[in-house]
Amino acid sequence: MKKPDLHTVAVIGTGVIGRSWMAVFARSGRRVRVFDTDPAQVAAALAWFRADLKRQRREGLLKKKAAAAQWELVEAVESLAEAVAGAGYVQESGPERLDLKQALYRDLDEAAHPAAILGSSTSALDMTEIARGLAGAGRCLVVHPTNPPHVVPATEILGGAETSPAVVKRTTRFMKDLGQVPILMNRYVPGFVFNRMQAALVREAVDLVRSGVCDVQAVDDSIRSGLGLRWALMGPFGCANTNADGGVRDYFTRFGSSYQSLWDDLKTDLRFDPELIERIGRQTDRVLPAPLEAQRVWRDRLVLEIRRLKAGNPLDSGRGKRKR
Amino acid sequence: MKKPDLHTVAVIGTGVIGRSWMAVFARSGRRVRVFDTDPAQVAAALAWFRADLKRQRREGLLKKKAAAAQWELVEAVESLAEAVAGAGYVQESGPERLDLKQALYRDLDEAAHPAAILGSSTSALDMTEIARGLAGAGRCLVVHPTNPPHVVPATEILGGAETSPAVVKRTTRFMKDLGQVPILMNRYVPGFVFNRMQAALVREAVDLVRSGVCDVQAVDDSIRSGLGLRWALMGPFGCANTNADGGVRDYFTRFGSSYQSLWDDLKTDLRFDPELIERIGRQTDRVLPAPLEAQRVWRDRLVLEIRRLKAGNPLDSGRGKRKR
Repeated sequence: MKKPDLHTVAVIGTGVIGRSWMAVFARSGRRVRVFDTDPAQVAAALAWFRADLKRQRREGLLKKKAAAAQWELVEAVESLAEAVAGAGYVQESGPERLDLKQALYRDLDEAAHPAAILGSSTSALDMTEIARGLAGAGRCLVVHPTNPPHVVPATEILGGAETSPAVVKRTTRFMKDLGQVPILMNRYVPGFVFNRMQAALVREAVDLVRSGVCDVQAVDDSIRSGLGLRWALMGPFGCANTNADGGVRDYFTRFGSSYQSLWDDLKTDLRFDPELIERIGRQTDRVLPAPLEAQRVWRDRLVLEIRRLKAGNPLDSGRGKRKR
Repeated sequence: MKKPDLHTVAVIGTGVIGRSWMAVFARSGRRVRVFDTDPAQVAAALAWFRADLKRQRREGLLKKKAAAAQWELVEAVESLAEAVAGAGYVQESGPERLDLKQALYRDLDEAAHPAAILGSSTSALDMTEIARGLAGAGRCLVVHPTNPPHVVPATEILGGAETSPAVVKRTTRFMKDLGQVPILMNRYVPGFVFNRMQAALVREAVDLVRSGVCDVQAVDDSIRSGLGLRWALMGPFGCANTNADGGVRDYFTRFGSSYQSLWDDLKTDLRFDPELIERIGRQTDRVLPAPLEAQRVWRDRLVLEIRRLKAGNPLDSGRGKRKR
């Protein structure tokens, strides 16, 4: 077997996440071999990809030739072995069950060239567990995208106990080359980084509605016409840094005790029940009446426009050259 | 005294928040009478406003005539009584101390026409306490902006125990007319709505750095290249609604228990200490080396561009006509 490189990748599992990875890889000119145990799933993913390319052409975002070139790069194959043959990177997006992931990784580790990297889209599992006992545990790591990765670029990267630091480094560089933004983690925690922060915010959002302080519309408006407008541009530390004249140290020194008082006031033992979910549902229906699909399409298109607005960000210049 | 209307407003207190309110009012064609007990503060606010108008002209966002018209609308006066004379709405942005606010509201309630609305920019105090015992407690309410209100439109609105519902309604409509997005609260809670959600997210952000799971850059990237890109467009309920095929009920029914497990794993007794703040400071310095002012200017400019991108949002059509 010839040593593979990162010009050929395999996409294993072609649900909503896998098919979006397919688009990420093809967009950056990689050959993509696609496999799923369910052939109907593969057909659906290819149909989605084709429709997405058409939409981009229609909106003038992609030339005919470029769209055709991307389409040409993607090949559906009949077996896992065919998918990984020649691939330098494998993106696995299978079901989120430890036993199934372990079985899949045993197969991948056997079939893939020893130099290939095996990345998992898992949002919850620990690579230490998934790759336990594998000869190739050193080349296995979590590469968890925000959904969908072809729109939202943040991608969490985390090795297991056996993962080689060189593999983490190569994968980080590879993700940057693809236009993704790697979020490097040092150790496993449930929910990783952004789902933990999302959970923290959602807990308070749900509690504000539950306790009747305000309704769904007020919560959502306060984010999308308030905090979210900043968070599209700066994270919480960047915001803290710019919200006090002396920067982030000044900010947390001045406002640390206010934060602590608020923290102590937030409800932490919140639980969902059907009545609460129904109340949220009714309030959401009132403010978001459009079909879900129209909302998704609008969101994805606007996210890409915001990313274009940000592309010339002078504040990124000190952070190393990122290819986007 | 002739009954005042909302074409003339008073800005009391001209710090960073007060001066930004000045810009909001002048932009929408209101006459603005400005007062601060510190004349130097007023001079600084006017200089800031003039510079901001010049910047907008330079960037082609404002014609010469329109800039001059806005400038003409603002008048610095020598006393609180002069400021509120003829004003149908008063925006108070004084120091955040209950005793000072109470004294200021006694003066405002005496000086302002009985039909004038007295809104406070307080981010923490309860209007029930501020207006206790005032003859005009019915026309007093919290109108707390996101900072700065001329850039970020979300504005929390909350009456005290004595506040007239009609005053809340008129103020809500007035804020919409100004282009702000009213966040209606039903009752007082510390931190109101968006500071509580911000506190919840910041607690987890700080804890991820404290515990060494990842660094400041990873946290900030996961927001600004991840969750924040969505939150600029949709709040947490809008995101939940579009992230499951059956909408928000389906989402929380399916993922409720995952959220609950994560909630139970989040640290809640977090405390700042100088070592932790310094660690955050060092990591922030590495990723955000540009001068703070350049970061702020970039952020404010981009927030306005994102708002322009969103202005034609078809999903807002069902939500009543908002003048922006």
